[in-house]
Amino acid sequence: MAMTALRRLEALPRAESLRLLSTVSLGRLVFTHLALPAIRPVNHAVAGEQVIIRAYLGTAISAAVGDRSGTVVAYEADLIDPDTHLGWSVIIVGRAARLTDQAEAARYRELLRPWVADGVADGADDIIAIQADMVDGFRLVETAA
Amino acid sequence: MAMTALRRLEALPRAESLRLLSTVSLGRLVFTHLALPAIRPVNHAVAGEQVIIRAYLGTAISAAVGDRSGTVVAYEADLIDPDTHLGWSVIIVGRAARLTDQAEAARYRELLRPWVADGVADGADDIIAIQADMVDGFRLVETAA
Repeated sequence: MAMTALRRLEALPRAESLRLLSTVSLGRLVFTHLALPAIRPVNHAVAGEQVIIRAYLGTAISAAVGDRSGTVVAYEADLIDPDTHLGWSVIIVGRAARLTDQAEAARYRELLRPWVADGVADGADDIIAIQADMVDGFRLVETAA
Repeated sequence: MAMTALRRLEALPRAESLRLLSTVSLGRLVFTHLALPAIRPVNHAVAGEQVIIRAYLGTAISAAVGDRSGTVVAYEADLIDPDTHLGWSVIIVGRAARLTDQAEAARYRELLRPWVADGVADGADDIIAIQADMVDGFRLVETAA
């Protein structure tokens, strides 16, 4: 009855949430594009209290973030088993900004290898840092019952 | 060199995007909550030109959608291999509304079994239909080079 058993949402502490986020490389950036909710899968790195992404998937992300450091975005990653539905999800909400320190950006470019040839070719290759202002993690665990 | 090879983004036709979405049960709903971007993993079904979700993960989703049929949300699902980074992603943007037809809602409740005990207990068990107004699918394929 694994498919129909109920799970319990267990809230995760902030540090554990950031640690889980750092164990995967793929997540989804949530932002506003042309006044509509937008979401794009990207790869990430966790550096202290920041999530670092590389905006190679076209210019929508870079345009949304801009150069203002006050643009609030969400970032989500999860690892949920499609069969048992057990796993975890971590959601970050915070201010996003393009990294302007070129040395730092170059370091993250090395770390976050692009997946997609197109994005690199069209020059949309910003490194964006998201502050983990709010961290909301939970684990889906099996109920005892 | 599988880890460093570049991929190409290949846009998918609308019908193929909806078909791929129907082959997985887990996706992520993107909406606005307290004026901030929000994202929650949920399970879904595809019914024609609609994505049907069950908002059992607390009341934030139901509050965001409300009873207005004009609330625009995004929905994303993907299947991307964490090692090869090959796979697909489908993003829907469209108006979301609670299903008010109780017979139809009951049918989808049967189809979309809840994973989480908590959501059912607190009564936040709405069936929400998202119109596939915009469908944006792509496949990450290996470049020949």
